[in-house]
Amino acid sequence: MHTGIFITIEGGEGAGKTTLIETLAHRLEASGLTVVKTREPGGIPIAEQIRGIILDRANTLMDPRTEALLYAAARRQHLVEKVQPALAEGAVVICDRFVDSSLAYQGHARGLGMEEVRSINAFAIHDTMPDLTLYLDINPEAGLRRIHASEEASREINRLDLEALSFHQLVREGYQQLHRSEPERIVKLDAEQNRTELAEAAWTAICRRLEEKGLSVSK
Amino acid sequence: MHTGIFITIEGGEGAGKTTLIETLAHRLEASGLTVVKTREPGGIPIAEQIRGIILDRANTLMDPRTEALLYAAARRQHLVEKVQPALAEGAVVICDRFVDSSLAYQGHARGLGMEEVRSINAFAIHDTMPDLTLYLDINPEAGLRRIHASEEASREINRLDLEALSFHQLVREGYQQLHRSEPERIVKLDAEQNRTELAEAAWTAICRRLEEKGLSVSK
Repeated sequence: MHTGIFITIEGGEGAGKTTLIETLAHRLEASGLTVVKTREPGGIPIAEQIRGIILDRANTLMDPRTEALLYAAARRQHLVEKVQPALAEGAVVICDRFVDSSLAYQGHARGLGMEEVRSINAFAIHDTMPDLTLYLDINPEAGLRRIHASEEASREINRLDLEALSFHQLVREGYQQLHRSEPERIVKLDAEQNRTELAEAAWTAICRRLEEKGLSVSK
Repeated sequence: MHTGIFITIEGGEGAGKTTLIETLAHRLEASGLTVVKTREPGGIPIAEQIRGIILDRANTLMDPRTEALLYAAARRQHLVEKVQPALAEGAVVICDRFVDSSLAYQGHARGLGMEEVRSINAFAIHDTMPDLTLYLDINPEAGLRRIHASEEASREINRLDLEALSFHQLVREGYQQLHRSEPERIVKLDAEQNRTELAEAAWTAICRRLEEKGLSVSK
């Protein structure tokens, strides 16, 4: 049992995860908490190597099950080397994407089946589930418009960006199913509202969870 | 359902798998069957890349669960790109190591648990289990002596070779448990007998399985 708090941020492309994480991290730090922001593969060399295989555009023959196993492997290594040590020291760990991404993307959208993908991820994360997951819900068309309008458009296009809109709609459907099946852990937030409102709703959810864990912060 | 026959060869280090596979392949070909010899990662670029991460001696921080997931990922890709197409064309596929290696090495010897490792491998192989598995049973001390005496000793030492003898004893224990739990699929052969006797015992087991599948060969 860890003493820290493990928060994961989930959602489709362009939902605004990165901006929200910055805002929440500053606010938690201002409350006197130690915050570790991370995302898979998180600078962990083994996980970076695995991610390199997944995102290599030359690997067009990659089977969806191979991909799901590789994500689970990278997740395991990042968890062991970075997340668990931070939680053991009592930090608030905010992770951009975690197990729910695999369930929504590989399990639901790619059609491998949520339960099958859940089983390999249960092996990967063993007993380290998030204390709180903030799911940023957004219409995929709105999300993709945001991405293309932003300066991020200048980055290199990777394999996932090339997926059709219908794929991203399935991803959203997957996340919504996850939220319905675990409404306590997964808090759904409307990511189409403005940044300030979104951050406020996220902050309220975090404060509630911190209080449940016996911690409280100035609101 | 494939029309070919899927045979896997299992056993500890120095059990004589490579030599046996050569002998069996020649004999099957002489009987008029199409034979595909393979071993993971089998020249499949994605699987080779994954294997490169596993065997990289610099990756000393690799968690046992990460390793097991990577083996399962490489297995999946090799199965999809090489084994399944050959089986679909009616070939006899002889594969040097397969799912039982992960169960014996990661599941039992590394202590991850057979059932846990079985679950991720079930995801990887989906519905393609071997029709026959030949398990070459050998005392680890005898097996390791063979390796060090052979010309193979000149090859580069990899991470697995550095494991202690006690590890290889646990591997053997794992294989023996697997044989007891699936005596029909897994045929145990005494790998300390001479090459000719071993090949003869293996050939008898293969002929029996071929007949069960409605094929017969000249003995």
